[in-house]
Amino acid sequence: MPEVAIIIGSETDLPKIKDAVKALNDFEVKNTIKILSAHRTPDEAIEFARGAEGNGIEVIICGAGLSAHLPGIIAANTTLPVIGIPFSAKLGGLDSLLSIVDMPSGVPVATVGIDSSKNAALLAVQILSIKYPFLSEKIKKYRTIMREDILNKNKNINELMEKYEK
Amino acid sequence: MPEVAIIIGSETDLPKIKDAVKALNDFEVKNTIKILSAHRTPDEAIEFARGAEGNGIEVIICGAGLSAHLPGIIAANTTLPVIGIPFSAKLGGLDSLLSIVDMPSGVPVATVGIDSSKNAALLAVQILSIKYPFLSEKIKKYRTIMREDILNKNKNINELMEKYEK
Amino acid sequence: MPEVAIIIGSETDLPKIKDAVKALNDFEVKNTIKILSAHRTPDEAIEFARGAEGNGIEVIICGAGLSAHLPGIIAANTTLPVIGIPFSAKLGGLDSLLSIVDMPSGVPVATVGIDSSKNAALLAVQILSIKYPFLSEKIKKYRTIMREDILNKNKNINELMEKYEK
Amino acid sequence: MPEVAIIIGSETDLPKIKDAVKALNDFEVKNTIKILSAHRTPDEAIEFARGAEGNGIEVIICGAGLSAHLPGIIAANTTLPVIGIPFSAKLGGLDSLLSIVDMPSGVPVATVGIDSSKNAALLAVQILSIKYPFLSEKIKKYRTIMREDILNKNKNINELMEKYEK
Amino acid sequence: MPEVAIIIGSETDLPKIKDAVKALNDFEVKNTIKILSAHRTPDEAIEFARGAEGNGIEVIICGAGLSAHLPGIIAANTTLPVIGIPFSAKLGGLDSLLSIVDMPSGVPVATVGIDSSKNAALLAVQILSIKYPFLSEKIKKYRTIMREDILNKNKNINELMEKYEK
Amino acid sequence: MPEVAIIIGSETDLPKIKDAVKALNDFEVKNTIKILSAHRTPDEAIEFARGAEGNGIEVIICGAGLSAHLPGIIAANTTLPVIGIPFSAKLGGLDSLLSIVDMPSGVPVATVGIDSSKNAALLAVQILSIKYPFLSEKIKKYRTIMREDILNKNKNINELMEKYEK
Amino acid sequence: MPEVAIIIGSETDLPKIKDAVKALNDFEVKNTIKILSAHRTPDEAIEFARGAEGNGIEVIICGAGLSAHLPGIIAANTTLPVIGIPFSAKLGGLDSLLSIVDMPSGVPVATVGIDSSKNAALLAVQILSIKYPFLSEKIKKYRTIMREDILNKNKNINELMEKYEK
Amino acid sequence: MPEVAIIIGSETDLPKIKDAVKALNDFEVKNTIKILSAHRTPDEAIEFARGAEGNGIEVIICGAGLSAHLPGIIAANTTLPVIGIPFSAKLGGLDSLLSIVDMPSGVPVATVGIDSSKNAALLAVQILSIKYPFLSEKIKKYRTIMREDILNKNKNINELMEKYEK
Repeated sequence: MPEVAIIIGSETDLPKIKDAVKALNDFEVKNTIKILSAHRTPDEAIEFARGAEGNGIEVIICGAGLSAHLPGIIAANTTLPVIGIPFSAKLGGLDSLLSIVDMPSGVPVATVGIDSSKNAALLAVQILSIKYPFLSEKIKKYRTIMREDILNKNKNINELMEKYEK
Repeated sequence: MPEVAIIIGSETDLPKIKDAVKALNDFEVKNTIKILSAHRTPDEAIEFARGAEGNGIEVIICGAGLSAHLPGIIAANTTLPVIGIPFSAKLGGLDSLLSIVDMPSGVPVATVGIDSSKNAALLAVQILSIKYPFLSEKIKKYRTIMREDILNKNKNINELMEKYEK
Repeated sequence: MPEVAIIIGSETDLPKIKDAVKALNDFEVKNTIKILSAHRTPDEAIEFARGAEGNGIEVIICGAGLSAHLPGIIAANTTLPVIGIPFSAKLGGLDSLLSIVDMPSGVPVATVGIDSSKNAALLAVQILSIKYPFLSEKIKKYRTIMREDILNKNKNINELMEKYEK
Repeated sequence: MPEVAIIIGSETDLPKIKDAVKALNDFEVKNTIKILSAHRTPDEAIEFARGAEGNGIEVIICGAGLSAHLPGIIAANTTLPVIGIPFSAKLGGLDSLLSIVDMPSGVPVATVGIDSSKNAALLAVQILSIKYPFLSEKIKKYRTIMREDILNKNKNINELMEKYEK
Repeated sequence: MPEVAIIIGSETDLPKIKDAVKALNDFEVKNTIKILSAHRTPDEAIEFARGAEGNGIEVIICGAGLSAHLPGIIAANTTLPVIGIPFSAKLGGLDSLLSIVDMPSGVPVATVGIDSSKNAALLAVQILSIKYPFLSEKIKKYRTIMREDILNKNKNINELMEKYEK
Repeated sequence: MPEVAIIIGSETDLPKIKDAVKALNDFEVKNTIKILSAHRTPDEAIEFARGAEGNGIEVIICGAGLSAHLPGIIAANTTLPVIGIPFSAKLGGLDSLLSIVDMPSGVPVATVGIDSSKNAALLAVQILSIKYPFLSEKIKKYRTIMREDILNKNKNINELMEKYEK
Repeated sequence: MPEVAIIIGSETDLPKIKDAVKALNDFEVKNTIKILSAHRTPDEAIEFARGAEGNGIEVIICGAGLSAHLPGIIAANTTLPVIGIPFSAKLGGLDSLLSIVDMPSGVPVATVGIDSSKNAALLAVQILSIKYPFLSEKIKKYRTIMREDILNKNKNINELMEKYEK
Repeated sequence: MPEVAIIIGSETDLPKIKDAVKALNDFEVKNTIKILSAHRTPDEAIEFARGAEGNGIEVIICGAGLSAHLPGIIAANTTLPVIGIPFSAKLGGLDSLLSIVDMPSGVPVATVGIDSSKNAALLAVQILSIKYPFLSEKIKKYRTIMREDILNKNKNINELMEKYEK
């Protein structure tokens, strides 16, 4: 069974990963949350990263704000794919985005949008789907539902618009 | 055998993916380049994306500049993981970075650094490695070489520095 | 009778186009709203764009946020003029502005200001006015009213200012 | 016969509109260039804008750099559609982009990408095409050629790539 | 007696110039407010600018938001010094700052900080002071008061700090 | 006993340094707050800076917003290390960050993050610790507590997450 | 006779003020250049600022790059109007622009565009013109020449354009 | 004798620290250069940081570009003061500046300007000077020389200016 780890640097970031946890659960991908900091618990963060593959984890999601080093440090200590979520705290999240995405050559981080923890989970599922065909099926269904949901909105768009025009 | 597709929107972007091609070849990952544009060849781009999985491709790398829509459009038409490379052309690449990374919920793009095509290739290899154990070994060797290369530099750092001080 | 389509990618963007709908109605320009997404309903978005001209639409207004690809994708699949409205969601809307305005050569999008849906409607009317002289007259009247409205404000500016000084 | 005016504020901007002139000529759209400045020749700029419609002009293209006011001032004095091209001179063109695109409510400018004068011309042609069907045909042909040009590139992509790999 | 005009483009900007009016009144500099728009009332704005010197005005303060053209247009039509205040509305005011400060060569605008209408008034007073010595005296007194005000704060800083520490 | 001075330019900045004062008190580093402005009390600011070393101060923390000149001016008038805190007021604090960090060659300011007054205090303690070994011990204990605090969070992470999921 | 001082912080900035010097000479405004630094020669900078008015100077132009404090420090020590020129060195000059323009309340700096030393000189002349009517006449002539220069360009625009098209 | 370590992540950064080395040598501060990477040699980087204090190092200077994690990782593993230099490589260095300066609470990095390695060295010297009085004397002399150097420039400023005017 596929397994994803979600790493954040502080308890206060827990609400920011709610959507990721929900999405992974919806896709029946096992997930574990760890609070580990590149700066406050470097040993445990590195130890976790180095042990992840051996512990059955296949993708690591890592969210961080400000000068966000955690995704890069985790990525430097594992060869598993690492997905970075820039959390916004200052400058609209531009600091964390640039701290995560512009990694030096040799150690990439797969960066998603600012505060986009759901997309991080979906990307993890897509990555896992190349090994687990059942996930590929699930994403296709998820996409179909997204599509139908939008198409259905067009059926009663006049009522919807009236609601907002008031 | 694992296979990656590299998609760019214009012939003039070919030099920008040289490092990605070289890295994939070094890792013995089969790769094909396609020039396809979200705006100039939308049918072929979508057709390619939809057929990619059936054609044995497992990861798609997609580089684009300016208001870079290609990675997102490819991602919208496949459930394979899509890696986006923001190419710099104006504003230092900030336009393409934000056009690729801040994808709406539902369709993620795994974004790497501005013009970082080598990191895109390495990320593709890391993603493939969860299915192909031989790639995991190769990345570990690659990392060891990177590490030793740096450590060796420290042995004759005084000569190196003198060279630059002149 | 001139007709404009307004395309947005999500129901939640409906309030953002209220001003556009109102302006088009005021100018007696027929308008239809569609919720279509470049990423979630690519087939329907493209189908809509390709059929628009045949269906009597003459200008398409398209609003989108984040890595906003919808205006560009619509523009790539029609030769009608496409007006893009960058919706703000993150980074003050800089991401959507740059995702819409910096289109690669060959497929332009007529971009208006961040969240400026009223200006998008007025631009549509101005574009239509080169074919429909009655619209040209209406815009001129609209401008006269805007002008007089401001000039009238100057008549009792002291009272207005006192109101704010309290 | 459709006619477009291209307005720039200084002789030194002439090279920046070369691509626009060439594109308009290719589409057989009559075009006239004027050097007029919002700040140095305000009377003539306004006079031009006010007379444009009467002189048979149907779309105005207006390029400007720095705190670029010319497109907005032209737009304020005509009800013809005005296309603004932000020219880069400082800050990568961010100053001129923001000076053109974020127009106050009531007077829109159809903004294209930084230094994208060719796209400005194509947008003018698309706008004119709603009145002049022959232009609609020409754009469709132009798009077909763009498309085929890219598809042809894929036929000998290996040779192209080898060229760059050397 | 020295006189300053304060120009804004919309009634809704009146609260933003309250501090300027108050400062000018405190310095006993006559001031008049006008609502005039570069885009909605171009004739009146230009007429005002051209007549200002003849009407006894010696400095013009001009506040505007978004793609803020008013200060530049006023400056283009008078040789009086024009002080521009960038009002924040989008992007934190970066759009209006760059639209006002980066004026093309030949027509400067004396730009103050984002939303800094008080500083605009003080700058007007300083400019006038080179002609009106009584204003020079008043500014010096104002500075002395500012200085003493800060120095007095240091006398009971512990109580102040305790207040905030609670 | 080590002593740090904290300088701010206005009483309204007092709440922004609360965390710095608390941290310095926790580390038993004597600290004094002064309200001094580079622009409103230049003599006193410079006098303070020049006298600081003689008065037993060893590190100066200096917070400022907007075009933040205070840290640089203090630094120019002392050879003690000066720590600058950019306070956010406009543009998310980008103006004050760039006004503090990009000092011309010859007079450095040790800049910490936007509004990061606690980190300014910790940096002061670390600087002092090279002279005062007892501070080195205290920081090591502080780091151990930070580390244990995070590790403890992992023990009941499921309950924490459930709290946020509701 | 009116007199302007031009202050820069380093010899290497001399080429950046060439256009200002030339413009002031053309307008027959006496001007003196001083190299004074807020950080390296604070005493002399302040002494200069405090003595400027007594020495017959009426406007001070002050150019600086990076975290540009010189204009603000000069402004804090004189009540003469101070014009700041942000010199570009890093980040396209955004650092110096924000370091100069966003002055705290009480001490304004009249900021012109990045590297716009000519506009700084013209602004100085415009400020002086409220006291010296001959300068007002000169600026009006200068504007007339600018205007005619542009209008003349339109006479042979086709030849000009052909030159660039080659 | 005081000792400083200078850490960079790659041989190619050696030219960027030349000025720091020269300044430290001029101040007779022992310095050692190490090439260590947060991502490529994490063990050695951490081992170095943890051993630095025991090895007699008192300040660590650390330069890095892009998503610059090295200064933060070194800072997390030592309680010595760490000075971070953002190296410019993309986006004018904004990515590295934000990656270094906006450190999360608990682990500060003393950040200097983009590419300002000389200022990093001077800051190190100032930090050391609180323990080593001879350094305090040296900095004071250095400042005196800087000051006199500028003042001397004013003696022959006319010749200097003429040189540039040619």
